[in-house]
Amino acid sequence: DPTLKVLSLNSNRALSQEIASAIGLELGKCTVNQFSDGEIQINIEESIRGCDVYVIQSTCEPVNKNLMELLIMIDALKRASAKTINIVIPYYGYARQDRKARAREPITAKLVANLIETAGATRVITLDLHAPQIQGFFDVPIDHLMGVPILADYFKEKEMANDDLVIVSPDHGGVTRARRLADRLKAPIAIIDKRRPRPNVAEVMNIVGNVEGKTAILIDDIIDTAGTITLAVNALKEAGAKDVYACCTHPVLSGPAIERIENSDLKELIVTNSIPLPEEKKIDKIKELSVAPLIAEAIIRVHENKSVSTLFD
Amino acid sequence: DPTLKVLSLNSNRALSQEIASAIGLELGKCTVNQFSDGEIQINIEESIRGCDVYVIQSTCEPVNKNLMELLIMIDALKRASAKTINIVIPYYGYARQDRKARAREPITAKLVANLIETAGATRVITLDLHAPQIQGFFDVPIDHLMGVPILADYFKEKEMANDDLVIVSPDHGGVTRARRLADRLKAPIAIIDKRRPRPNVAEVMNIVGNVEGKTAILIDDIIDTAGTITLAVNALKEAGAKDVYACCTHPVLSGPAIERIENSDLKELIVTNSIPLPEEKKIDKIKELSVAPLIAEAIIRVHENKSVSTLFD
Ligand SMILES: Nc1ncnc2c1ncn2[C@@H]1O[C@H](COP(=O)(O)O)[C@@H](O)[C@H]1O
Ligand SMILES: Nc1ncnc2c1ncn2[C@@H]1O[C@H](COP(=O)(O)O)[C@@H](O)[C@H]1O
Repeated sequence: DPTLKVLSLNSNRALSQEIASAIGLELGKCTVNQFSDGEIQINIEESIRGCDVYVIQSTCEPVNKNLMELLIMIDALKRASAKTINIVIPYYGYARQDRKARAREPITAKLVANLIETAGATRVITLDLHAPQIQGFFDVPIDHLMGVPILADYFKEKEMANDDLVIVSPDHGGVTRARRLADRLKAPIAIIDKRRPRPNVAEVMNIVGNVEGKTAILIDDIIDTAGTITLAVNALKEAGAKDVYACCTHPVLSGPAIERIENSDLKELIVTNSIPLPEEKKIDKIKELSVAPLIAEAIIRVHENKSVSTLFD
Repeated sequence: DPTLKVLSLNSNRALSQEIASAIGLELGKCTVNQFSDGEIQINIEESIRGCDVYVIQSTCEPVNKNLMELLIMIDALKRASAKTINIVIPYYGYARQDRKARAREPITAKLVANLIETAGATRVITLDLHAPQIQGFFDVPIDHLMGVPILADYFKEKEMANDDLVIVSPDHGGVTRARRLADRLKAPIAIIDKRRPRPNVAEVMNIVGNVEGKTAILIDDIIDTAGTITLAVNALKEAGAKDVYACCTHPVLSGPAIERIENSDLKELIVTNSIPLPEEKKIDKIKELSVAPLIAEAIIRVHENKSVSTLFD
């Protein structure tokens, strides 16, 4: 179908290439560079007039540059008469700034949604938003994909589904996600219940549910500095868990994350390539799974006006 | 007036401080930091409910970060019930991407205007836009300040106005600007007329006007890599100019700029602090003038509903 075009920006070229190959396309021709003063220079090198264009970009670090690349590309596509401008954001940055937790804070996740719409996007496809409410920050249609089936398949293939498993949410906000993984692995769940006895006193991690003698799998959407997750590993071990695995969709892994993971009792951390791992983060303990087949299938279904939600039944 | 607040972001804190002092205010309290993963974190630390807020930020290098700081601050101010959100942009980045010069290019200067309005700005104050047409990219009121009087005053104070001066525009686009400086210094103008005899052959710089034996002052809005300006110096010298000065409002000075200026026959380069000079760019040949008094006066006039354009009569 010559009206279907997939374009890549700079955040995650390997993933974009994999997605295009899975669809059976070459990536559209465009250059995304910087001028001498750091301003982004974008040129689309082939006609996209009347086309359905899918632009792939994660707004991971460097988040502001990656976001501006996306906005400028949308502007260029709009002015070049694309028929539809479909934005594929495997990792949606600024998602944790999704409410006013304190007075006079911005709600940057909503600002970013407004910026993307103002630039001219006509549809958004994304993966495991930090809060599903962020879908409502957009007025254009949004397809919200889930990484859980990919993570579940990995554990099934490892034949761990026969172990005495327990799926653990590291906080109250993640219980729904843990429940989804537990359903697919036919396992019970447990929850880490953090509380701070007094201000400026370390948090206590209490485990709700039985983990003794079991193989525990922690699941989260984002692992950033890995503080929460490595403390959770300790708490699970102390509560008698046999082995502890962790998995997440988005490996932000900033600051001390890699060191903490290396030094932890974590058996393995399973992540997806929604955010690419730079060489220095490719350690033995981290296993990377690809979301390319999932995203490619979603693009094909959207382009053919078929249901995307049935992908997760 | 307790309803007037001036806030600074990170691009140009020294200038913001100077502006606030000139108005007779302390800068408003806010923190503008980064989370561990590079996402911008903004907190306004005092109530600004019902206030007229002026936010000072140049969108110079790192342009994407500086722009996002501005947009996120506007979002926070809007949600914190500021009465008016007045954006002071001494240097408006992406201004050179103000038209489709080639097929399928973005018009990023317009995109940036849309982003600033979408975030919630109610007024823009800026200085020497690369093209005055960019004013029309905004739907909110815009006050467009000029650096020429500041540059002219410097040459007057140097008592150069008595020399045999000629004001030189480095290209056809800059003649109006050169004319303005020439009027203030009561000098004639000359124009550098570049043409490329054949593709892939070096440009020829032809000088329209008489420069022989005169002190030439080149004027531009932006000096970026300093290629044009240093070639112009050579052309003027060859045409018999006695001394060559250059001046501009916005010292972008990227890539080889400093080296080229050092190695050129330029007597002095006069710039403003619309873009701060980092230590390594503070060389003897570069003289920095402050736009703080001009911007402070513009803020006072806007706040008191007085004419800003009479500043340039
Ligand atoms: N990039 C970030 N890194 C760390 N913390 C963040 C980041 N963005 C937002 N936050 C904070 O994290 C909190 C939201 O996290 P959560 O409670 O997991 O939804 C908010 O209170 C934010 O202030
Ligand atoms: N940051 C930049 N650095 C160098 N060139 C640029 C930049 N932004 C835009 N341009 C190019 O400069 C040209 C506009 O410059 P001008 O002719 O002086 O208005 C356009 O054709 C742009 O492609």
